[in-house]
Amino acid sequence: MKDIKAVVFDAYGTLLDVHSVIEKLDTVFPEKGTQISQIWRTKQLEYTWLMSLMGRYDNFFNTTRRALIYALKALKLDFNADLCETILNEYYVLKPFSEVPAALENMQDKKIAILSNGNLEMLNTVVKNAKLDKLIPNILSVDELKIFKPFLGVYQLAPAKLGIPREQTLFVSSNSFDVVGGKVFGFKVAWANRAGNQLDELDVKPDIEVKDLKQLADLIKS
Amino acid sequence: MKDIKAVVFDAYGTLLDVHSVIEKLDTVFPEKGTQISQIWRTKQLEYTWLMSLMGRYDNFFNTTRRALIYALKALKLDFNADLCETILNEYYVLKPFSEVPAALENMQDKKIAILSNGNLEMLNTVVKNAKLDKLIPNILSVDELKIFKPFLGVYQLAPAKLGIPREQTLFVSSNSFDVVGGKVFGFKVAWANRAGNQLDELDVKPDIEVKDLKQLADLIKS
Repeated sequence: MKDIKAVVFDAYGTLLDVHSVIEKLDTVFPEKGTQISQIWRTKQLEYTWLMSLMGRYDNFFNTTRRALIYALKALKLDFNADLCETILNEYYVLKPFSEVPAALENMQDKKIAILSNGNLEMLNTVVKNAKLDKLIPNILSVDELKIFKPFLGVYQLAPAKLGIPREQTLFVSSNSFDVVGGKVFGFKVAWANRAGNQLDELDVKPDIEVKDLKQLADLIKS
Repeated sequence: MKDIKAVVFDAYGTLLDVHSVIEKLDTVFPEKGTQISQIWRTKQLEYTWLMSLMGRYDNFFNTTRRALIYALKALKLDFNADLCETILNEYYVLKPFSEVPAALENMQDKKIAILSNGNLEMLNTVVKNAKLDKLIPNILSVDELKIFKPFLGVYQLAPAKLGIPREQTLFVSSNSFDVVGGKVFGFKVAWANRAGNQLDELDVKPDIEVKDLKQLADLIKS
């Protein structure tokens, strides 16, 4: 890991806990929060893949709204457009995983960036609200290319914008499909596998698997 | 529906019940069949989308094997390559939904085809084993294009091979993403929604929604 000059993070699920919406969901739909959140996240990703494959694009905030509407309808919950927006606004205040700020502090000798499906408006806001803006000077969004991960071209944004070759870039994601995409693209890849998930059977493996970003920061340092 | 000259069916989940593998799975892994089958099917589709987006391709039989291996590993079940192949071979003997043969009989005044993610070898075998080969004279596979649904180009196989324009073709699928893909492409689309699922929030709706293919056959006839 001593060649690594840039560390590029996925945002949703990696730095930010997308399931921190459950608390809010539970206040609106008692005891349904976890189930809503699971369907919401599953459909959010599925829609990014389907729209990309069909050559259609809608930004990630809108895609997230679509997935939320699907989840609420699928569970036959009563809602209107205002309530939907109220819930959706939780995406501006997603909580970072607890070890993230200190881990990022410990990597400041590298170029630090986010490379995310999120559009810049939602990314800038959530990063600021999570008090990570000073620690992450570069925020790169697939929105510029109007197609989502794991289309390989979007990973090229990191070398292009940071000026560091892919082989000297450590890409960090908690999402198995994104680990695969980053690896196929040619990054060094770390899988932050907090949940102990099974790796996808898609022929590639991450260079490192860690249980959280504290462990990663320690590894990079040594 | 009176303009319809061709009826083109998705195969897996629409004509053939992918979950008919549960019986076999339960004999090998008692009481785990349903759970294995769900993860297996979810990952099978996910892998088709991810590989297509990354510009990689592996045929559907191999993709199905990958998804099965993932499912068995994720559930920490004990298996070897032989057992995996034994289970995978169930894809050659998937059962058609019960109403399918009679419904197809009732549509023989139209051009009938399958347009499927499956490669020809697996499609020809399963269709023959299900005794549907006489009822479905045209079997079209995305394998020719080396990319999976809902990449819009694969739907073009039907007009190209059948010689019937998309507007006069009724595309029939049980899979919501495939209903969306077919509709965005420009087919007339029927959603065979046996399970009463929620439609995806992707801006398009099927022209018809039916609970099974008997209902569809009756509608086309009238």
